[in-house]
Amino acid sequence: MNSKDGYEWTEEGGLRQGVPSIGLILPASNLSSSNDVFDVIVIGAGYTALTAARDATTSGLRVLLLEARDRIGGRSWSSNIDGYPFEMGGTWVHWGQAHVWREISRYSMRKDLEISQDYSHGVNSHTLFTATSEKHNLSHESEDIIMESAIKKFINVDGKLGHSVMPFPHDPQHNPEVLRFDNMTAADRISEIESDLTALEYSALKSFILLCSGGTLATMSFYEFLHWWALSGYTYEGCIEYLVKYKFHGGQSSFAINFWNEAMQTKKLSYVFNCPITSVSDDGRSVEVTSEDGRQFRALRVICTIPLNVLNTITFSPPLSPQKSAAANTGHLNQCVKVHAEVSNKELRSWSAVDPSSKLLYAFGDGTTPAGNTHIVAFGANETHLDPEEDIKKTSQILTDLVDMDIKRLVFHNWSKDRYAKGAWFFPGKEFVTKYLEELRARHGNVFFASSDWAVGWRSFIDGAIEEGTRAAFDVHRDLRRSTHGS
Amino acid sequence: MNSKDGYEWTEEGGLRQGVPSIGLILPASNLSSSNDVFDVIVIGAGYTALTAARDATTSGLRVLLLEARDRIGGRSWSSNIDGYPFEMGGTWVHWGQAHVWREISRYSMRKDLEISQDYSHGVNSHTLFTATSEKHNLSHESEDIIMESAIKKFINVDGKLGHSVMPFPHDPQHNPEVLRFDNMTAADRISEIESDLTALEYSALKSFILLCSGGTLATMSFYEFLHWWALSGYTYEGCIEYLVKYKFHGGQSSFAINFWNEAMQTKKLSYVFNCPITSVSDDGRSVEVTSEDGRQFRALRVICTIPLNVLNTITFSPPLSPQKSAAANTGHLNQCVKVHAEVSNKELRSWSAVDPSSKLLYAFGDGTTPAGNTHIVAFGANETHLDPEEDIKKTSQILTDLVDMDIKRLVFHNWSKDRYAKGAWFFPGKEFVTKYLEELRARHGNVFFASSDWAVGWRSFIDGAIEEGTRAAFDVHRDLRRSTHGS
Repeated sequence: MNSKDGYEWTEEGGLRQGVPSIGLILPASNLSSSNDVFDVIVIGAGYTALTAARDATTSGLRVLLLEARDRIGGRSWSSNIDGYPFEMGGTWVHWGQAHVWREISRYSMRKDLEISQDYSHGVNSHTLFTATSEKHNLSHESEDIIMESAIKKFINVDGKLGHSVMPFPHDPQHNPEVLRFDNMTAADRISEIESDLTALEYSALKSFILLCSGGTLATMSFYEFLHWWALSGYTYEGCIEYLVKYKFHGGQSSFAINFWNEAMQTKKLSYVFNCPITSVSDDGRSVEVTSEDGRQFRALRVICTIPLNVLNTITFSPPLSPQKSAAANTGHLNQCVKVHAEVSNKELRSWSAVDPSSKLLYAFGDGTTPAGNTHIVAFGANETHLDPEEDIKKTSQILTDLVDMDIKRLVFHNWSKDRYAKGAWFFPGKEFVTKYLEELRARHGNVFFASSDWAVGWRSFIDGAIEEGTRAAFDVHRDLRRSTHGS
Repeated sequence: MNSKDGYEWTEEGGLRQGVPSIGLILPASNLSSSNDVFDVIVIGAGYTALTAARDATTSGLRVLLLEARDRIGGRSWSSNIDGYPFEMGGTWVHWGQAHVWREISRYSMRKDLEISQDYSHGVNSHTLFTATSEKHNLSHESEDIIMESAIKKFINVDGKLGHSVMPFPHDPQHNPEVLRFDNMTAADRISEIESDLTALEYSALKSFILLCSGGTLATMSFYEFLHWWALSGYTYEGCIEYLVKYKFHGGQSSFAINFWNEAMQTKKLSYVFNCPITSVSDDGRSVEVTSEDGRQFRALRVICTIPLNVLNTITFSPPLSPQKSAAANTGHLNQCVKVHAEVSNKELRSWSAVDPSSKLLYAFGDGTTPAGNTHIVAFGANETHLDPEEDIKKTSQILTDLVDMDIKRLVFHNWSKDRYAKGAWFFPGKEFVTKYLEELRARHGNVFFASSDWAVGWRSFIDGAIEEGTRAAFDVHRDLRRSTHGS
């Protein structure tokens, strides 16, 4: 069955909205009566919500999960098209990411990972376009050398590659001096080192950091990139390892469904999909949640996992704190677009490219489909935004401008136009973390906020989502125990 | 209050057995009647058992925990002597260790870590003795260069520093070719590269790998060290990061107590400390556990976390499989001794030493006590075994042979003479992993075996213990659900 989400294009079928996924939940609801007062309402069904709902139900709480979409996974879900999982959002995981790896291990999925890169095929090389559109064909070794050199120059604000300003990546403000880098954009930092960058280095750097932020150089926070770098072990090799290397053979939805099934098996999970909500009203004893179609649901506590960029579409009563509201109105700036191309060119499996001027500025071979075709994944950022569905011919042209390819299929999810996301993974502008992060993590009466968008560790990642879902379920459980037992 | 475990020596007090710890549980039992049939009996109270008991109780199961000692923590516990936590066993943790970090994050302890090394004091140097007892004073930079060079020569069996023979450290046999290295001891591997090692490198290498194994070069498995190396990111810097760098400011027991408290708060945990058990008898429907003092306890399932080297002191009925018995009789070979010295020499905080011929072959400054003294930690291996309590004067002499120091206090736990451990963390001889690991992980009727000694990932580490406790609770819960619901 198809989710309503995502797009698929083929020559024969044209452009169709909606792609099949095992993350689709049918029937869309198991709720018999909405008069119940639940222990917890979890708003959302991404990894944060799935983790929170699973932990809460397995610890004995009665949970109602409300989700606007028809599927689980939020900003991380995979298609099942002709036996192949195209990853529509969050993709890669690593055993050094504690929260996600604990779950992979617990669900016995440690052998279900595969490596995106495979440097054993025909076009085993890297195409690098400079900012002036000069094309260079390089070995992957040269690609690594240029990338590493460029990123090290960018990151080396302390002569220790960030080690001394951010010694504990999971307590990132351990050294408070690091906060001054949140007053700096990527462009600010580039201006300090520009004269030291070669044209190739500039191109590699720009593409890589825009790949990370999905934003623009002039707006993305340098601090946030520094945090990614520290989390990745302060090396370029670590960045590749953690950010774009290991993915699920069966796709993200094959992982997410385990959380769902475990919660369902407790028989304590009620749920309603296709149920966008409009307001959350806390009377101090319990919380009423109202859906777009006017249904009302009630629980002692609410765990709200609505992404930052959508938070201000919900009416809270009492209203959110001025700081939380300001954060929601500011939002984050990641408008990444990710386009999958299934191409008949087997030889492109080992190819990669960066082109900082392209609307798809970072691309590489990511797999071989059951039909024997190569799967290419390509990313664009808000620097030059693309809505792929608006002009498929143009989207194809952008890809073939990178390298000659014979496109059989395109698959993508336009997160920017997705009304329940309004963007991809969290990436903030400058001063956002300093001003808002702590406040975004705070509870609001009986409403607990949880999202990878304000995780402490691997913020923006699946790991951060599970970190936050774990935290929310822990806090709510403790809170309910206290109010019941007075202890 | 003092645990019976551990030793403390001071000039004034002499040698005393037993040291204070917040891991001591009083009263020693909360069991009102032993006629109950529990859902699960958890044998042990180390991290594996604590995790299993916590996960089982929070998911609603009624648990009885039986522990031979008077305290929680098993082979990882810390003293509270004059406000300072001497770590009697397992010490260091890292955010790249998924299971332990997930718990640190969940218990909001991410800011409770500190760094063992502090290279800012007087004797900011490294003393390296060669095998022929030549003494070299080196900078820490030189220490790193020698160590790194030596270990790389040792590990580089594939020209890729282990990457190609063990590409997935958490699926270590992903490339089955790696198994041939389990037929090899460290001595076997050294003989292949010996001519390429300088005298300093040999000394550094021998000390480091014996620090890891607590065994002997002639017996320790090369495969197992290769696994540690891969887990540590295939770098020497990674080894230091993961193995000996970040520890709890308040000691391991300040972490372990959180698991205990959470399980207790469910009101589903019964427990008996000071209760060594002698037999486990499974009649196919439930399991009877008998203690040394003749008490009998019964549950539907048992999670047995007894360490490998002690497993053959328990009578199982029906008997363990021949392979499990053979594994237990073979045991592992880690007889590490760890000695803490509190010394008045402030200037030694930044000092470190290796001496492959010493009974304490690896030592370094590990902290400053509230009294302003330096805390030195030193390790010995079975290559030249030491029982520190047998001759305190000799033990002190071994330390002062490394460097001049004025010893105010010695603290240690003799794990080799500990009848409930019979050794330190797991480190196997050759062929052990190949022959026994899978079988050790298998259930035996209604008895589930869980221990860091046979974890898949960070085997031997606190992380591996939590991995195993998580697995056991998950498996038992699923098993009980199936037998109740038939689903």
